[in-house]
Amino acid sequence: MAPLKIAKEKLEKVKYDPQGLVTAIIQDYQDGRVLMVAYMNQESLEKTIETGQTYFYSRSRQSLWHKGETSGHIQIVKSMEIDCDGDALLFQVEQVGVACHEGIRSCFRPVDSSQPMSTEVTEQATQDQKAELGEVLA
Amino acid sequence: MAPLKIAKEKLEKVKYDPQGLVTAIIQDYQDGRVLMVAYMNQESLEKTIETGQTYFYSRSRQSLWHKGETSGHIQIVKSMEIDCDGDALLFQVEQVGVACHEGIRSCFRPVDSSQPMSTEVTEQATQDQKAELGEVLA
Repeated sequence: MAPLKIAKEKLEKVKYDPQGLVTAIIQDYQDGRVLMVAYMNQESLEKTIETGQTYFYSRSRQSLWHKGETSGHIQIVKSMEIDCDGDALLFQVEQVGVACHEGIRSCFRPVDSSQPMSTEVTEQATQDQKAELGEVLA
Repeated sequence: MAPLKIAKEKLEKVKYDPQGLVTAIIQDYQDGRVLMVAYMNQESLEKTIETGQTYFYSRSRQSLWHKGETSGHIQIVKSMEIDCDGDALLFQVEQVGVACHEGIRSCFRPVDSSQPMSTEVTEQATQDQKAELGEVLA
């Protein structure tokens, strides 16, 4: 794991909301596809910088969440940006496997699609799904 | 103004937070640059779809906000996507002028930059800044 080279005092720019969270947008560093949006608290942001992989705060589980910890679909951070009012972060990442828990590359799909998962299943996702299916059937 | 072709019942997928807001990510439809993040309530989302231009809900002013209304820097929506849990929207847009109120193309800049505005000033922004400066000096 390679830490990000970001001085800790630069993180004073980050403005957490009343729940202690900041919005984090995750984008593929190669083709710019927006993969997902999640939230970070101070601990998860510090872990992200320390490890060079994304950590979030799960609002539903109310706990630190290392993306890909169980699936292996980690995100290796290539760059980190902050917006002009400090309440949103943009991470460009190398996505291992797929970002979405539904087995597709991006969590985003056309709003008017009735088959939201049909167009973006990557080869990797298909392989993963087969592997998981194999495990279930085994 | 060209409305987006999205059936109203498809918007039932959108999950607003307790404040009645959904996160909206704005991305340049040509090169994928993430331009800004803002929030929409139901009214602003409906106006966005009705007009094909972005409308947000300003949390600080607590009012509907037509992006570019005063600056002319409107965003013409090319596509709209929703994420797997329905609480974030991704709009690909044609940005007229610049997205950031600081006169730069994107609201995002490296977190460790001490001169955050230095690298991304577009020609259009420079022209706009000159025009605005001209108005101030006039």
